Amino acid sequence: MAPLLKDELDIVIPTIRNLDFLEMWRPFFQPYHLIIIQDGDPSVTIKVPDGFDYEFYNRNDINRILGAKASCISYKDGACRSFGFMVSKKKYIFTIDDDCFVAKDPSGNEINALEQHIENLVTPSTPLFFNTLYDPFCDGADFVRGYPFSMREGLPTAVSHGLWLNIPDYDAPTQLVKPRERNTRYVDMVMTIPKGTLFPMCGMNLAFDRDLIGPAMYYGLMGEGQPIGRYDDMWAGWCMKVVCDHLGWGVKTGLPYIWHSKASNPFSNLKKEFKGIFWQEDMIPFFQTLKLPKDCNTSQKCYIELSKQVRAKLGKIDPYFNKLADAMVTWIEAWDELNPPSGAAAVAAEGLNGPAKKK
Amino acid sequence: MAPLLKDELDIVIPTIRNLDFLEMWRPFFQPYHLIIIQDGDPSVTIKVPDGFDYEFYNRNDINRILGAKASCISYKDGACRSFGFMVSKKKYIFTIDDDCFVAKDPSGNEINALEQHIENLVTPSTPLFFNTLYDPFCDGADFVRGYPFSMREGLPTAVSHGLWLNIPDYDAPTQLVKPRERNTRYVDMVMTIPKGTLFPMCGMNLAFDRDLIGPAMYYGLMGEGQPIGRYDDMWAGWCMKVVCDHLGWGVKTGLPYIWHSKASNPFSNLKKEFKGIFWQEDMIPFFQTLKLPKDCNTSQKCYIELSKQVRAKLGKIDPYFNKLADAMVTWIEAWDELNPPSGAAAVAAEGLNGPAKKK
Repeated sequence: MAPLLKDELDIVIPTIRNLDFLEMWRPFFQPYHLIIIQDGDPSVTIKVPDGFDYEFYNRNDINRILGAKASCISYKDGACRSFGFMVSKKKYIFTIDDDCFVAKDPSGNEINALEQHIENLVTPSTPLFFNTLYDPFCDGADFVRGYPFSMREGLPTAVSHGLWLNIPDYDAPTQLVKPRERNTRYVDMVMTIPKGTLFPMCGMNLAFDRDLIGPAMYYGLMGEGQPIGRYDDMWAGWCMKVVCDHLGWGVKTGLPYIWHSKASNPFSNLKKEFKGIFWQEDMIPFFQTLKLPKDCNTSQKCYIELSKQVRAKLGKIDPYFNKLADAMVTWIEAWDELNPPSGAAAVAAEGLNGPAKKK
Repeated sequence: MAPLLKDELDIVIPTIRNLDFLEMWRPFFQPYHLIIIQDGDPSVTIKVPDGFDYEFYNRNDINRILGAKASCISYKDGACRSFGFMVSKKKYIFTIDDDCFVAKDPSGNEINALEQHIENLVTPSTPLFFNTLYDPFCDGADFVRGYPFSMREGLPTAVSHGLWLNIPDYDAPTQLVKPRERNTRYVDMVMTIPKGTLFPMCGMNLAFDRDLIGPAMYYGLMGEGQPIGRYDDMWAGWCMKVVCDHLGWGVKTGLPYIWHSKASNPFSNLKKEFKGIFWQEDMIPFFQTLKLPKDCNTSQKCYIELSKQVRAKLGKIDPYFNKLADAMVTWIEAWDELNPPSGAAAVAAEGLNGPAKKK
């Protein structure tokens, strides 16, 4: 089968190591273009297996391309992947961590995660009413009795959130309490997360429609110099979900699975998460009650409005949120610079700041 | 293993035929008490296989026990099962259709549907925030990173909605368009339907906590003399969901599966559903925007308030909804008569109206 959407999708990978994990993904990823973001020391060399088509950015590249606005991109943290979302010029993004491998379905077949994400993204979502047979656009499924006919056209899908077999995405306290727990349950299902419902979005195995929701897919300020880590994807998930709900787009979760190979260290995770454990108790009610005005009719406008509300309502919890609100604005400014509405994005990016390293 | 909650659960079965289907369920159902409601002509004899502990009600029994209030119980329609919910004195109800058989899991093991329903009901729900590994109270699962700790205690579970392999629960138009579609996808999962989200509740394979939500589990007016059919469980589902959301209870869906043996006739279904196809376009927005006042702090109070809003807002669609609103009030009056707060329910029921037929 020809690779799906080959010219419309980039794979974004943040990494601190040689990308040996790509060997296992070769049959699935090789047709696609990769955007690799080094999330550690730029002087370290990252090896990419032969035969992949990719562009590569380290911190020096990010500084050169964004100038002062590089402050919005995290350093020494996987959150730097946001930069890849920004420099891509494709309609779709798939992002995956470098400790994620090809999983097998219960029949023992290797799962083409990317193909399933694309399937999720190109079929509609149903956030306005729950279907008890889950995604009605899957083969062999449909809308059940009692599902209003006026809602069966569905809404555009902005995000496809994939899951993980083996090591579940647990927080540090749960890792500490259940060090041996593994996820072995293969749930053969995709569903739309209903409108008005928040969820913990994990960035390990994630795809989205960049044209729709790209500007809201900002992983925030984590890593070096920041008081918090491991909330980058959570932050992006809460922000993008309220934007999707406001703009009438859907978010799917479920299939595809990847094989998450190794649990990160729960002690260093606890250090990173510590403040987040407290802060999320205020962040969740904030996002659950947040209202966006009607004139916010693009992801960008929604996101700028969101930054104002973050400053006004979360700023009092900790000065960090004011810094984050600033960074959210900088992020949108940088996004718009690299992605001007004219479509001359590539010229703008390279003309102003010099070309990125490309293979 | 000893049967779970043997003295706390009744199985309610509406039927028009001999209950041969119970043979297949014998190992699972025999320890429990059955309440059988004949939904057709009382002069027809219904045979129940030997060895089951049951009570049996036909239309004459319902008229005798409820008197004038029997008007709220549907005749010649599965909706008559509501009467079984009302006369039960147990904490939990499991209700199943007589064309539902024991399903097998992908390993070929027979599924004890009742055991899974009980598991769903006695563990908490998580309607306030979505967990991407689904029910965190299942074996091998937990709350994922980013799930607020303050919400991990969960909320009481009021309803467990099970699914169907083989014949999916489709409406008449979908049955007509896809006559050969079968549900073969075994989704190994239980989840909480988020707060604020409506779903189409199918009454085929359903369990609930009668003490919590029983008074809102009214299947409405269907069957003989009514302009609509096949919306009985839908109506109950939408009503009970807004009540659960208001009172802070959870609704789970997913496992267990039963084997649904035979599709009902799509032509006669279309006749029954015809008006509902139009009406549901107004009913759904009605339930989606409905607000219950704070002082409605019991299922009964919520339900009476609901009946007022049905009259005020749906009455203008069709006079049927005024009749339904009346029946909702009658239903609560009858419920309270048979289930007085004193706990002397049985005495009240039998004392006023004579004893039901018991085996």
